Amino acid sequence: MSIQMINSMDFEEFIDILGNIIENCPLIAATIWSQRPFKDLTDLKKHVFDFIEALPQSGKEGILRCHPDIAGREFEQGTLTPQSQREQREAGLSDLSLEERRRLGHLNSAYKTRFGFPFVIAARLSDKATILKELERRLKNQPAQELSTALEEVLKICHLRLEDIRQSLEDPAKL
Amino acid sequence: MSIQMINSMDFEEFIDILGNIIENCPLIAATIWSQRPFKDLTDLKKHVFDFIEALPQSGKEGILRCHPDIAGREFEQGTLTPQSQREQREAGLSDLSLEERRRLGHLNSAYKTRFGFPFVIAARLSDKATILKELERRLKNQPAQELSTALEEVLKICHLRLEDIRQSLEDPAKL
Repeated sequence: MSIQMINSMDFEEFIDILGNIIENCPLIAATIWSQRPFKDLTDLKKHVFDFIEALPQSGKEGILRCHPDIAGREFEQGTLTPQSQREQREAGLSDLSLEERRRLGHLNSAYKTRFGFPFVIAARLSDKATILKELERRLKNQPAQELSTALEEVLKICHLRLEDIRQSLEDPAKL
Repeated sequence: MSIQMINSMDFEEFIDILGNIIENCPLIAATIWSQRPFKDLTDLKKHVFDFIEALPQSGKEGILRCHPDIAGREFEQGTLTPQSQREQREAGLSDLSLEERRRLGHLNSAYKTRFGFPFVIAARLSDKATILKELERRLKNQPAQELSTALEEVLKICHLRLEDIRQSLEDPAKL
């Protein structure tokens, strides 16, 4: 069972494997390691959620600011975290027309100016057309509503990354 | 003045330049960006300290767990953050005898077993003999006392890294 494997990890292995379940925030894995043993992955996720929930608003926004732009320069240069690179590729974002790229760049930039953090979406649950539509729609949200919508996306991404980890622990050939 | 340059940065540039003032915790820079403008670097540091201070004990330990071992495998392989690599090199840690390496490995490991986080020290303010002595001495601390001592070292490292940033902003040739 993968949860027993996770519970038996020392903190270095734990951070190595779970450090990016929240993009670029190894501090969260490093924190919840103290809270083992976890009953199951749902319980582990609850500790992640509790950490984020306890942050002040600036800290919640900080989590979002640790995320890359959708189809931004780092994605094009291939310098994202392996997880983000894969998620954006699987959403078809390496296959944008010039017009789509221009529109996405424009919307990303308007979004960051309005909210002070980048647009975050669980790209693997979406595709490029939906991502563009969602970005346009969410740009009209009120700031407090959008902060909470964006954090829900962070948790969806966390859930998917944990599922990948579970699968790779149960069948290392899939890693 | 560097503080004005820092206050005028967008969050991407801010994280790019200040993201590692606390080792491997870009979340902290990403959080305090909301709290600009800073009066000066002392004021900026106060926001960093306040973030850490507000964390539960597990989060404070998490900050320490984001730090590398002193003279550990990553240092030997040159895969630390540029700041850590330089700090450990300047403390003379690339020049250990076999006996010193063995002793450090043994003490590091005993320390992690006892406290659940790695030994953190502002290496640039020290040298290899003092680091070994301090590691041996702090290993005997009570856990609560050692957590607070280790976090003071984190803040000293943050102070030195901010000084480097200030210098490089005022004289980019020094970067």
